[in-house]
Amino acid sequence: MASMTEAEIEAELQKGFSTIEVVRKHPSSPVYHIYLNSPSHRNALPLPFFLFDLPRALSLLDALPSARSIVLSARGPHFCSGIHLPSLSSAISLRTPHALHRNILSMQSAITSLETLRKPVIASIHGACIGAGVDLVSACDIRYCTSSSFFSVKEVDLALAADLGTLQRLPRIVGYGNAIEMALTGRRVGAEEARGMGLVTRVWEGREEMEREVDAVAREMAEKSVDAVSGTKAVMLRSRDLSVGEGLEYVATWNTAMLRGSEDLEEAVKAQMEKRKPVFKSKI
Amino acid sequence: MASMTEAEIEAELQKGFSTIEVVRKHPSSPVYHIYLNSPSHRNALPLPFFLFDLPRALSLLDALPSARSIVLSARGPHFCSGIHLPSLSSAISLRTPHALHRNILSMQSAITSLETLRKPVIASIHGACIGAGVDLVSACDIRYCTSSSFFSVKEVDLALAADLGTLQRLPRIVGYGNAIEMALTGRRVGAEEARGMGLVTRVWEGREEMEREVDAVAREMAEKSVDAVSGTKAVMLRSRDLSVGEGLEYVATWNTAMLRGSEDLEEAVKAQMEKRKPVFKSKI
Amino acid sequence: MASMTEAEIEAELQKGFSTIEVVRKHPSSPVYHIYLNSPSHRNALPLPFFLFDLPRALSLLDALPSARSIVLSARGPHFCSGIHLPSLSSAISLRTPHALHRNILSMQSAITSLETLRKPVIASIHGACIGAGVDLVSACDIRYCTSSSFFSVKEVDLALAADLGTLQRLPRIVGYGNAIEMALTGRRVGAEEARGMGLVTRVWEGREEMEREVDAVAREMAEKSVDAVSGTKAVMLRSRDLSVGEGLEYVATWNTAMLRGSEDLEEAVKAQMEKRKPVFKSKI
Amino acid sequence: MASMTEAEIEAELQKGFSTIEVVRKHPSSPVYHIYLNSPSHRNALPLPFFLFDLPRALSLLDALPSARSIVLSARGPHFCSGIHLPSLSSAISLRTPHALHRNILSMQSAITSLETLRKPVIASIHGACIGAGVDLVSACDIRYCTSSSFFSVKEVDLALAADLGTLQRLPRIVGYGNAIEMALTGRRVGAEEARGMGLVTRVWEGREEMEREVDAVAREMAEKSVDAVSGTKAVMLRSRDLSVGEGLEYVATWNTAMLRGSEDLEEAVKAQMEKRKPVFKSKI
Amino acid sequence: MASMTEAEIEAELQKGFSTIEVVRKHPSSPVYHIYLNSPSHRNALPLPFFLFDLPRALSLLDALPSARSIVLSARGPHFCSGIHLPSLSSAISLRTPHALHRNILSMQSAITSLETLRKPVIASIHGACIGAGVDLVSACDIRYCTSSSFFSVKEVDLALAADLGTLQRLPRIVGYGNAIEMALTGRRVGAEEARGMGLVTRVWEGREEMEREVDAVAREMAEKSVDAVSGTKAVMLRSRDLSVGEGLEYVATWNTAMLRGSEDLEEAVKAQMEKRKPVFKSKI
Amino acid sequence: MASMTEAEIEAELQKGFSTIEVVRKHPSSPVYHIYLNSPSHRNALPLPFFLFDLPRALSLLDALPSARSIVLSARGPHFCSGIHLPSLSSAISLRTPHALHRNILSMQSAITSLETLRKPVIASIHGACIGAGVDLVSACDIRYCTSSSFFSVKEVDLALAADLGTLQRLPRIVGYGNAIEMALTGRRVGAEEARGMGLVTRVWEGREEMEREVDAVAREMAEKSVDAVSGTKAVMLRSRDLSVGEGLEYVATWNTAMLRGSEDLEEAVKAQMEKRKPVFKSKI
Repeated sequence: MASMTEAEIEAELQKGFSTIEVVRKHPSSPVYHIYLNSPSHRNALPLPFFLFDLPRALSLLDALPSARSIVLSARGPHFCSGIHLPSLSSAISLRTPHALHRNILSMQSAITSLETLRKPVIASIHGACIGAGVDLVSACDIRYCTSSSFFSVKEVDLALAADLGTLQRLPRIVGYGNAIEMALTGRRVGAEEARGMGLVTRVWEGREEMEREVDAVAREMAEKSVDAVSGTKAVMLRSRDLSVGEGLEYVATWNTAMLRGSEDLEEAVKAQMEKRKPVFKSKI
Repeated sequence: MASMTEAEIEAELQKGFSTIEVVRKHPSSPVYHIYLNSPSHRNALPLPFFLFDLPRALSLLDALPSARSIVLSARGPHFCSGIHLPSLSSAISLRTPHALHRNILSMQSAITSLETLRKPVIASIHGACIGAGVDLVSACDIRYCTSSSFFSVKEVDLALAADLGTLQRLPRIVGYGNAIEMALTGRRVGAEEARGMGLVTRVWEGREEMEREVDAVAREMAEKSVDAVSGTKAVMLRSRDLSVGEGLEYVATWNTAMLRGSEDLEEAVKAQMEKRKPVFKSKI
Repeated sequence: MASMTEAEIEAELQKGFSTIEVVRKHPSSPVYHIYLNSPSHRNALPLPFFLFDLPRALSLLDALPSARSIVLSARGPHFCSGIHLPSLSSAISLRTPHALHRNILSMQSAITSLETLRKPVIASIHGACIGAGVDLVSACDIRYCTSSSFFSVKEVDLALAADLGTLQRLPRIVGYGNAIEMALTGRRVGAEEARGMGLVTRVWEGREEMEREVDAVAREMAEKSVDAVSGTKAVMLRSRDLSVGEGLEYVATWNTAMLRGSEDLEEAVKAQMEKRKPVFKSKI
Repeated sequence: MASMTEAEIEAELQKGFSTIEVVRKHPSSPVYHIYLNSPSHRNALPLPFFLFDLPRALSLLDALPSARSIVLSARGPHFCSGIHLPSLSSAISLRTPHALHRNILSMQSAITSLETLRKPVIASIHGACIGAGVDLVSACDIRYCTSSSFFSVKEVDLALAADLGTLQRLPRIVGYGNAIEMALTGRRVGAEEARGMGLVTRVWEGREEMEREVDAVAREMAEKSVDAVSGTKAVMLRSRDLSVGEGLEYVATWNTAMLRGSEDLEEAVKAQMEKRKPVFKSKI
Repeated sequence: MASMTEAEIEAELQKGFSTIEVVRKHPSSPVYHIYLNSPSHRNALPLPFFLFDLPRALSLLDALPSARSIVLSARGPHFCSGIHLPSLSSAISLRTPHALHRNILSMQSAITSLETLRKPVIASIHGACIGAGVDLVSACDIRYCTSSSFFSVKEVDLALAADLGTLQRLPRIVGYGNAIEMALTGRRVGAEEARGMGLVTRVWEGREEMEREVDAVAREMAEKSVDAVSGTKAVMLRSRDLSVGEGLEYVATWNTAMLRGSEDLEEAVKAQMEKRKPVFKSKI
Repeated sequence: MASMTEAEIEAELQKGFSTIEVVRKHPSSPVYHIYLNSPSHRNALPLPFFLFDLPRALSLLDALPSARSIVLSARGPHFCSGIHLPSLSSAISLRTPHALHRNILSMQSAITSLETLRKPVIASIHGACIGAGVDLVSACDIRYCTSSSFFSVKEVDLALAADLGTLQRLPRIVGYGNAIEMALTGRRVGAEEARGMGLVTRVWEGREEMEREVDAVAREMAEKSVDAVSGTKAVMLRSRDLSVGEGLEYVATWNTAMLRGSEDLEEAVKAQMEKRKPVFKSKI
């Protein structure tokens, strides 16, 4: 989609999605919102969400220069109640193991796109965040929630090992001990406990307050140098899977590539010396 | 021991152990308890605990279908005061470095068996948990303690680097900063601080209250699909040492293997749709 | 410097440094203090700090037997305000990418020396700890701070990805979620929040109180077996980048090497049995 | 493209490509041929080859059930003379480092598709195989060549480090010593020397003879169980980047997934017992 | 078995095995021979070979001080024709995927014991070495064969991916290119080609000649310092799965453990200076 | 030494070394020769070679712009007979295990400097290359030898595991099977066999012929773009210890850093189009 014009991407986004909604709240806002949008099923995630809607939306937003930060939240009283059961049933009944294998890999790949997206993603969570909902938010960069939210790695109660990323990403976020207890027991973890273990980094009283603050944070990140934001995200992601020494060598090479002649960096230094707000121009 | 009958395993367990006690509290309970049982030495762990009792008990419980979750706790006022000093002395005075090397590897291997056991293990801790006690509980899946418990990575005060797993597992549980401070200073970490850093996930006022709740959690896990519980544990353990991408590929393959035709999964989906409690039949 | 005499090293230390101060508070103290010493620039770190002063100081202290633990703190009202901007500008304007690459690697290498130093390093932090300050303390073993301290991974606001270790070390200390939120937003994290996520392990009301306690902890570590302290540090560092299984094998081999015939160990066991304080003799 | 019908894929293939030709020699042949097709430029590879033609062709062939093995060869007297220089120049002159970075990653990704393709790929090489040509064939599963072929890792003479895979894959194929000598000197390695170091596994006198034999090998692989062929390829690829122990665990899980109830396996065993040729039915 | 006396181990060996024969050719020979011993089935390997005989034999030989090197060869005209088909069938038809998974892991584990055995193992191969035969010899330390031998990774023709180690170990022995061609085509590789790619390191005309030479090499290794031989094997095995830097650190620690005060080393240096043959005394 | 002038480095080199000789054959030659220079001891390598001479020489040559390729060879009839025995004895008798450990790490570090040197190193070998000699040449980039040379991993006969890199690097060069046979048996491998397994890449009849050709290859490399040569070496070294995917990402970032605005690249493309020899100007 790299070859589409900005207008074409916008038009493509306008066509909409069956399981999500993509919204730009203000015409010139650099923040785009993705809403899980099946409130009548408490946002249970069906197959098309993974195979079509999420990858298509993220691919468009990645290519769209005007989108500089993304907020993932949900319509209705709950963030997400997990995978849509009929989707699970149909996946399991696939004719060949190869087909099932590819199906799982495709679903995983949709979620991993949140991580490889070049723009920061804030998950803004309220109500229940269960099963696949945890897989989803674990791949976001920042997680905020309301005080009445709760989290549950519920897959064990569906008689399966969670296979969309929770078992891999959660231990790096909350530590192995917290993660395995959640995964083996499926117990509910409330907002404050979630914050205590690093699953979310901030908790707000209510949805409105959270939305206001999430918007502010998203806009703030959008105003930073997009090269620096996307570079920081890319380097951290890569370093997560390398030793510290390898990660250091990687970021040294990254910055050698990106900093020489960087106008954003020059502007940042100049602005800081002049004690004014910098204006960044880089685009991706 | 895979080839022993259930009765033979039970009989073998009846023979008992010199340093631990293995108890099934009720004749048909799916929960088995392992008690550290040298209260007169504050459960200092002697060589035979590592070389004979723990591996033998875990090997029997792994093979015993009726054992579906395990609780590790201790008799007497303290959970564990560390390694039994004469054992340490005798290990160090082994005639050849090869003998000492193998001795350490054997002791490590006993502790690692907690991790590779196909059933969940809850460490239920009270009083002091020191040195080798920390090595031990770090390899359990879930750690609960009473409010008067405390933890100390005390090996540094024995003039050695802890070599039974704490230095490897603790950083993944509590973060590198908390772990290295504990290991370099040997300082006592109380129950609440331990919970704050993820070393334990719940703290109870007293032992009775803890026992009651631990039993409930253990029974709950025992009632889940054993395939799902052991699969979740196995996948998390394997993923801990892989990159996220490799871990995702691994769990996709795992679920392809385990889910097709799974009666437990079918039952789980059906039960959830019918809003009733599922009854799982898988055995391991 | 391994071949210098103790007196020569002391003399070399006496010559002083342009950006830091190295102090032994009492003539026979085993604790050495490194102070960031450009309070007029709020301890912004210039190039010579990384290329000359820090590596030279650490190399001398590593070789100096009388130095058994190190405290890193700062003069003036703030710990560190980040990299010195003119240094950054001059680095970026280096003539060739190879030169820039080597420059970054050299600066990283200075910080990594804190980690590979054979003696424990406590960062004693007050006031602001920003940007390169976070890189610096992330490589220390123990981090304490005053209640009015705050931390900010500010590099993103300089339009660059932090390249001196924060993006690699911080996630292992505070979890990936806390780390990436700090790195993408640059937001200030106060002392209590820092403690909650494991960035520091203790918080004190004021500087005096902290200094007193830091000195006590440093002296305590200095009185332990230096073999055990440096071994624990080395094994944890190595194990951080290995799988758990590989780390276990490594520490088994390490202890086989270090424990046989260890007088410190013998003394520790004897002292513990005699319920007295051990006196250790090993030197490095 | 998974959702296209076989006829649609075939139609799509008919539309052709600008830099390659995709040919099925016989209407019902399970072997598809990809020809590098710019003989007038000695098959120098331009940007569109990497960004459009190769990924599109491989994606279609991956989805096409009738394609069961692939042969990659070239029109004209030489296999490939390297990257098309104007493409290289235009890549280098990209406006931002981010754009150049993504451009290289995209080109790499095209070549990696040869490796992740679920069907075996034979590179059938004649004449010169230089620079990007070596990157290309290093990602194929099997390499055969004529006796007058030669290989040269020529990028060093373009004043750059080869960045399309040779420096990563070649050492695993020919050993680190052979690979680095080729990469640092750019020297020509003839067919026999190439076979001696494992760069190709067979050498034929002339092109006709090679083509005949390549077709036979390709057809032979096409007649095997496609589950087994694609599984073997996938497992080896994954195991290349894991430790031996991790790779063993992976293939155990893979076969648990793929073998239970496998009709191909049943047929293979039966046929072998009946000493007849098996007929496999699996499709991907 | 570490706790059995040498006589008890010998007695245990005397009891024999159903699928192999363990022979000490001369009463005081330090070389033990394991023969695959189902010549009527061309040494097709049945389940009990993996689950009982091989692990039991290797465990006894590992513990037996008088056994200092091991030769693995076969009775009858062929070394091994692969897995015994009925065993394969019965494995595949196991009731649960968990049972199949554990079965594969157990079979793998038997083969891995060749690698972790503390004594060197020479595979002495003649005739056909097919399928599981290749898995088996790939885990031996040294591979020699007669000129009429041939090798075939035949599993692909049984419609499965080889799961007993060939796909993991072979690429490290012969390079990825040679290994994947063998695995995808199943083609026969003759003795000379095998030597050319490093699959065997020496080829002899006939069996008698080979046996004579194998015995000489085995005896020669048995006369070396057993500490040095087992240490070299252990370090290489561990280093195979580490980066070079990690491997260097590992062997430095290993030798620190094993060399101080080593009488074998002292004797070796002395003997070399006195230009006489050393006499080593270490035992394992 | 980065801060020394070219003249100062030259002067420093003039001071000479006790165990090696560093020679520039012609006043303006870009090739520098390091000769092992204790022919009376058949170039047995003493401790000062590792601790002083080799690191000092390599550090100077790395910093010297006029040195663009390095040849390592030896005076006298043999390349190297291994470690100097009294050095080994004195190392082993070090007072503490920590001292021995550091000693081994220092010796390893000297050899690793060959690998991290930014200029290509050719080992030009004749006669015996034994023990530490193999460690040494395994860390060079290119290995050539005369037809009468032979190689022997002889450490096993000194009753120790080789600890200077052979056990880590050799398997990546010649395959695990060839490497472990050499290491367990210590047997002599002649020039042609060495070439067959990739230990050397070319063999010449006699020393004179080899020297002439080595000089030609060294000069050829010296005339290439030094950015490209050192970049290729650095990327291969880093990629050796990464997965293929990680290595690809690394080289993409590397080239993004190094190629934009590269005058050497521009010159290379231009020269190739004009069919003339390029003239490169980059310096390191």
